[in-house]
Amino acid sequence: MSKLRVGIAGLGTVGRGVVRLFADDASRLNEKMQLVAVSARTAARDRGVDLTPYRWFDDPVALASDPGIDVFVELIGGSDGAAKAAVEAALGRGAHVVTANKALVALHGSALAESAERNGAKLLFEAAVGGGVPMVKALKESVAGSRASTVAGILNGTCNYILTEMENSGRSFEAVLSEAQGLGYAEADPTTDVGGFDAAHKLTILSAIAFGTRPDFAHVRVEGIERVTLTDIRLAGKLGYRIKLIAKGSQVDGAVEMHVRPACLSFDHPLANVGGSLNALVVDAEPSGQLTFIGRGAGEGPTAASVASDLIDLAEGRAGYAFGKPLTQLGAAPRATPAERGRYYLRLLVKDRPGVVAAISDRLAHEEISIESFLQMPVSEKHTAVPIVLTTQTCARSRMEAAVKAIAALDVTAEAPFLMPVEHAGQRWSSS
Amino acid sequence: MSKLRVGIAGLGTVGRGVVRLFADDASRLNEKMQLVAVSARTAARDRGVDLTPYRWFDDPVALASDPGIDVFVELIGGSDGAAKAAVEAALGRGAHVVTANKALVALHGSALAESAERNGAKLLFEAAVGGGVPMVKALKESVAGSRASTVAGILNGTCNYILTEMENSGRSFEAVLSEAQGLGYAEADPTTDVGGFDAAHKLTILSAIAFGTRPDFAHVRVEGIERVTLTDIRLAGKLGYRIKLIAKGSQVDGAVEMHVRPACLSFDHPLANVGGSLNALVVDAEPSGQLTFIGRGAGEGPTAASVASDLIDLAEGRAGYAFGKPLTQLGAAPRATPAERGRYYLRLLVKDRPGVVAAISDRLAHEEISIESFLQMPVSEKHTAVPIVLTTQTCARSRMEAAVKAIAALDVTAEAPFLMPVEHAGQRWSSS
Repeated sequence: MSKLRVGIAGLGTVGRGVVRLFADDASRLNEKMQLVAVSARTAARDRGVDLTPYRWFDDPVALASDPGIDVFVELIGGSDGAAKAAVEAALGRGAHVVTANKALVALHGSALAESAERNGAKLLFEAAVGGGVPMVKALKESVAGSRASTVAGILNGTCNYILTEMENSGRSFEAVLSEAQGLGYAEADPTTDVGGFDAAHKLTILSAIAFGTRPDFAHVRVEGIERVTLTDIRLAGKLGYRIKLIAKGSQVDGAVEMHVRPACLSFDHPLANVGGSLNALVVDAEPSGQLTFIGRGAGEGPTAASVASDLIDLAEGRAGYAFGKPLTQLGAAPRATPAERGRYYLRLLVKDRPGVVAAISDRLAHEEISIESFLQMPVSEKHTAVPIVLTTQTCARSRMEAAVKAIAALDVTAEAPFLMPVEHAGQRWSSS
Repeated sequence: MSKLRVGIAGLGTVGRGVVRLFADDASRLNEKMQLVAVSARTAARDRGVDLTPYRWFDDPVALASDPGIDVFVELIGGSDGAAKAAVEAALGRGAHVVTANKALVALHGSALAESAERNGAKLLFEAAVGGGVPMVKALKESVAGSRASTVAGILNGTCNYILTEMENSGRSFEAVLSEAQGLGYAEADPTTDVGGFDAAHKLTILSAIAFGTRPDFAHVRVEGIERVTLTDIRLAGKLGYRIKLIAKGSQVDGAVEMHVRPACLSFDHPLANVGGSLNALVVDAEPSGQLTFIGRGAGEGPTAASVASDLIDLAEGRAGYAFGKPLTQLGAAPRATPAERGRYYLRLLVKDRPGVVAAISDRLAHEEISIESFLQMPVSEKHTAVPIVLTTQTCARSRMEAAVKAIAALDVTAEAPFLMPVEHAGQRWSSS
């Protein structure tokens, strides 16, 4: 059998990592494949890898369209532009595509999968989600004999790094973000990461596979970590919780709910101790039971390794449908309404006056919400306002929202209240 | 395409679970397969599942030999006897085999894989290791683009349950084991589990796949949890460690070392918080980085789900070689010598006399071993001997063994010292 001929477009961190894997003669990649061509914006730059054995293309679409390429590896990034045009060109002529591009798959996954099926090509994207952690394969193949009810993960390493560093070093969100930008861990425009959109792209992909639906990014409710303060991290910690950006999809009676948002996790929750830039996924499925996957969510090595596993699946004839099933079997899931009941964390900034605690308690009691814990800490300097945090027992979402509205309207309230869900281990996660 | 015809031999917990999955019309199993025959020792027993749609075989070998069966599912158990004969019969005529039988695969994996390859059949055993956790597929396929240096896991749920219960309830090994036997969590003869042999079977399989070698059970050094006392669990806990039965395989320069034994893990170790009957695997590989997989390691649902994922892989044409590569590419790995240096936990029972601590310290100092922590707790009743535990800094294995020998020879030593390795998170695990 002749070897599959591979072309790589995009020679950033991950692209260089994949070239390096091919350069290792003992690599399993070279058994059934060969790298024959590469493409990037600038040919001249020294990338620390020898590119002379490979044909050079200035234009990724030309590379993707070249009949001498059997597998097109797209590592350009971006949901549109050159990445999309090149992937479409490859699939359109029946060439397989391996990509690490979560935005592309989240936004255009159905159309691309459709093109792949029509043209007899495979579309694989293990590297798009969870870096080196095989989340896509686990959901497509290992959980195939079970039914998933929930996927919940830490899917953005930048956010997790920032939250972990805030906790460990006691620095502010802004200070840690700025340092992360200096170190190259965070983009100059951090919105995609800290705003939760990158995690939402990944959740879109995982939910589609887990629940057998078409990817539907517009359907994800997204909230980032910008409002999480050091006060939240410290006080939640004193109450027994750690704050994480959680991306979660749930299926109830065929309807799907997806959201990305910060949440308070009890310390014994399987995601609570996933620190730094690690990524993790918890899958609840029956009859397999709860499964947890943890590993490095980004970087040259892990992401290149996932590209390599997709290439090996292609070479060994194991690659299946893009989302695990033929597109005709993937429904457009109705949107589930968020769950009616849950537990909450509420942070308030209030003027330091007698009667404040009574007023807050009264508004909660009026909605029949029981307080689980309540914490007001002395502030070190002379502040005119003090932070108060509290967690609630399980209550109706509508009543919690009404209580928050009433508290926000109190004249002692100095800034908009900040509300997060609280999740416990073992508890079936509510999607409130 | 006609459907694959499946026969199941063995209708215990897992067998019933698989039958139940087939009985669900909406199950993905039924898309490309049908269950046509079953076999067990007793036809008459009520198993809570309707067996009337299926042909009955008293003899599993007859079922495995029947030309009307394309896939033989072996859930009988045992490394020899009926299970082995039936699997050999199926593979010998080119029928695929799916099995949950770790002892069979650990002891006879090479011969069975050879028969499968010769006859164009597939041999799959995801359910043999880690219950519902896809450890086999992860190593065979997801880590295929990387090189694994270490696999380390909690692979026996009974041992993990016993150790967790001892810690949580403060009861002795014997008391918890006896309760587990009463609840059906542990066998009447618990040797296979608590002696570490079940974990060793599973480690044999995982190491073969991870390191590309033939399964070699005889090569595993096995130590069980029988000598772990409540004192160890309590005092190790005070020193910052949790005791787990760890199954670990390491590859260094092509040589492989495998052992199963109790070890002290620092609380932040990825396996330290895997409690109860959960199973977990940590894989160190490059360039993918460290990967952790956690889930339910036994029981009807999880194990049946793994059998189902193997069946779906078969039906969808994804099943590869038994150990990930053709048998001719699997070497017989030379045995690595255990690592030369490590950290240790030592528990002593000594007579309560002046000079005891000095004598112990002296024997350690003589071997140039530095103590990391030392703990002697008051004993509540009038004992003539007191337990002392200590942990060491990294030291040479040979010197530690010499010190233990010298301490054992002291006339104040009241029982044989108990030695365990100490493992820290982040540290590259030594295989001392």
